[in-house]
Amino acid sequence: MSLRKRGTRGVTAPSVEPVAGNGLLDRRALLGRGILLAGAAGTGTAGILTGAAAEPLKDDPWSLEMGAVTPALQTPSRFEQHVVRTRSNPNNEFRNSHARTPHHLLNGTVTPNSLHFSINHAGLPDIDPDKHRLVIHGMVKQPLEFSLETLSRYPLVTRMHFLECSGNSAPMFSNEPVQASAQAIHGLVSNAEWTGVRLSTLLDEAGIDPSAKWLVAEGADAQLLDRSVPVKKAYDDAIIAIYQNGERLMPGNGYPMRLLLPGYQGNMNVKFLRRIKVVDQPAMSFFESKTYSQILPSGKAWRFHFLQEVKSFITHPSFGHSLKGPGFYSVSGVAYSGTGRISKVMVSADGGKSWGEAALQGPVHDKAFTRFHMPWRWDGQPVVLQSRAWDEAGNVQPLRAEFVALRGQTAKPVTNPLGFPNQHYNSITSWGIDSKGEIKHVYA
Amino acid sequence: MSLRKRGTRGVTAPSVEPVAGNGLLDRRALLGRGILLAGAAGTGTAGILTGAAAEPLKDDPWSLEMGAVTPALQTPSRFEQHVVRTRSNPNNEFRNSHARTPHHLLNGTVTPNSLHFSINHAGLPDIDPDKHRLVIHGMVKQPLEFSLETLSRYPLVTRMHFLECSGNSAPMFSNEPVQASAQAIHGLVSNAEWTGVRLSTLLDEAGIDPSAKWLVAEGADAQLLDRSVPVKKAYDDAIIAIYQNGERLMPGNGYPMRLLLPGYQGNMNVKFLRRIKVVDQPAMSFFESKTYSQILPSGKAWRFHFLQEVKSFITHPSFGHSLKGPGFYSVSGVAYSGTGRISKVMVSADGGKSWGEAALQGPVHDKAFTRFHMPWRWDGQPVVLQSRAWDEAGNVQPLRAEFVALRGQTAKPVTNPLGFPNQHYNSITSWGIDSKGEIKHVYA
Repeated sequence: MSLRKRGTRGVTAPSVEPVAGNGLLDRRALLGRGILLAGAAGTGTAGILTGAAAEPLKDDPWSLEMGAVTPALQTPSRFEQHVVRTRSNPNNEFRNSHARTPHHLLNGTVTPNSLHFSINHAGLPDIDPDKHRLVIHGMVKQPLEFSLETLSRYPLVTRMHFLECSGNSAPMFSNEPVQASAQAIHGLVSNAEWTGVRLSTLLDEAGIDPSAKWLVAEGADAQLLDRSVPVKKAYDDAIIAIYQNGERLMPGNGYPMRLLLPGYQGNMNVKFLRRIKVVDQPAMSFFESKTYSQILPSGKAWRFHFLQEVKSFITHPSFGHSLKGPGFYSVSGVAYSGTGRISKVMVSADGGKSWGEAALQGPVHDKAFTRFHMPWRWDGQPVVLQSRAWDEAGNVQPLRAEFVALRGQTAKPVTNPLGFPNQHYNSITSWGIDSKGEIKHVYA
Repeated sequence: MSLRKRGTRGVTAPSVEPVAGNGLLDRRALLGRGILLAGAAGTGTAGILTGAAAEPLKDDPWSLEMGAVTPALQTPSRFEQHVVRTRSNPNNEFRNSHARTPHHLLNGTVTPNSLHFSINHAGLPDIDPDKHRLVIHGMVKQPLEFSLETLSRYPLVTRMHFLECSGNSAPMFSNEPVQASAQAIHGLVSNAEWTGVRLSTLLDEAGIDPSAKWLVAEGADAQLLDRSVPVKKAYDDAIIAIYQNGERLMPGNGYPMRLLLPGYQGNMNVKFLRRIKVVDQPAMSFFESKTYSQILPSGKAWRFHFLQEVKSFITHPSFGHSLKGPGFYSVSGVAYSGTGRISKVMVSADGGKSWGEAALQGPVHDKAFTRFHMPWRWDGQPVVLQSRAWDEAGNVQPLRAEFVALRGQTAKPVTNPLGFPNQHYNSITSWGIDSKGEIKHVYA
């Protein structure tokens, strides 16, 4: 790569030669004048002001009058009213309710609590935190009972982690690419800072029997969801979370306490946690023996496939956006892995024929969203954008052809008897952009 | 330190001998049965269940009925209605409005957007993001104009940073300790993940004159606040932030775009940013020549004292809480420095006579909140809790006696002619706890 001297401040900038097809640029590009004005031949993003146009600046109405009252709880501007979760059950009928995170409208890595995805099977319970209790019992020396107050007296750990429903991205199993946003397709994953007590601390305090191999965790809402969790995971990195992004948990995310199993399928992270029974074999409860016993095209099933594997998708640009003519853009999205840290994300603008390495926004957390960026100069011709992630254990996000060969493409033939769609999609998402800048979901 | 073998899972636990006066324990204590049940002589935090008491569990009302509808935007439980910002101007009179973060009710490190502190001098402007523009002009080759859309096309950086009003903690200058919560005293600092464009990228694109030394940044609300910023800081780590914790900025925090100068006094981080003029000398604007030209007891003033220096305070337990009898607790709070990363936090339970090192919750970010925890066994006698932070550059939070000697204690005699209180308090906060577990703010 050739380097060119920066005039004004002595900074050297990388060349603007593409690193992969259809205009992908080196991730270290500093994006100064060289690229935007000279390099892009007048199609940079900034408007150039000539002469006196820079000032005086016309005052807008909001510069001329006293503004609104400061609220006790801040809410977004009225111009951001479209930034909401989309809901599957807005009338609260007697079934489950999904609310999806609008990834195509967000940036960075934190999902604000107002927009964290949620799935509840019996509505949002109205739990009085002073009356709620967590009991640890079963194969322990001493059964114990905890209130929110007593849990809060432990030294708490704070960690950034993603949480993903293993049914996230289920639309990707359809035969034809659904025309839908990253929110509709991938909205059942979010990322937050969780604070709570290590589960291992509580199990030690109860005196867990060395022959115990499983825990059965149970929630307090009317669903009384129960899931089996390996003791090994409990001693690895499980926590009982009592804060989410600094404040108490949201009602849809388990208030006042939930199990957090970093990197494991969302359903196992039991919300409204009221009971943990220490046992020597799994409970084979409804969700683990039916919904999440993944049936494969071969007719066999995956049992206890807990891990949410390495994955990424592009959020900017994506379905629902449009490009405003040729010029410079940044291709950006999120990558994450239930195994550990993201080590690399590659981006393609030609449907996978060539790839360039994206810049990762650090620090890169364990089992958490990592934001990637790839500078890109679009020449106005049709392109197909893709991203592909690697994690620190060497796992790589499968290409779609590989994934479909193993797991099937259409949900229907491999739907299990209860009608649940296939799970654990972690292959590539492709956004096709035509010469008008319109964006479609494509398979490539 | 002696180590003791853990029975059940082969883990070795540190001894439970105190590391400093009045019951502070080693920060590496694993807090299993050894400490809580045996060590604390039956005064552990967990309730012990005997025999069949562990089950069956009585079902609470929320376990027996369908819950509430899932909202498009999640909000906290009704049991958390007290977790709000406290406001200085709830009727929006024609003056400034403060809203303070409730640190004594939060945990972890992220401040949720709803609770991020804000100070606005002319209410909250209702800015149309499609009409708002940022102009960079002055000593540049090419004046440039940016919209929110064009800024969003740059490769964005994402960073966790605290933001603090330099008037934060002003009550600490009073002669007698004010009896008020960490929210009332320290509520003008918060911590968020900010995403935006490096200011250096935009200055390079405009072609900044090498002889330029200052920028004058101006906001678009009716205050038209302007502040001078060294070009050096702009090229160090300044960004134009357009996202806050993943979503667009809150109206009280600068929607749709603000200057972010990590570690510099809040007022310089100009909100609603509409203009940056590149110049060769500071503007000597109102806020920099009056309010924030700190007058010292000697009668001299600090000019351009931008840095928010190393600081910490205990949030749990603190004023507004009470201890429920002798036993185990975790002493916890936040530490931060405008210079860089926090390297160490020491905690005292005897008013500064002896100190023990607290555990830091990693990863420790640059110029961001770091949460610390210190295990503590309270014997029921009166204590005084304090914390003291160090940063990676070796700066240490001053003891109160040192601070008062240099800066004075009472705001009145050293108040500047415009009546503003003293600024930049970064000394120690002391919480005195009596034998009933009641907590007072004390000077020690």
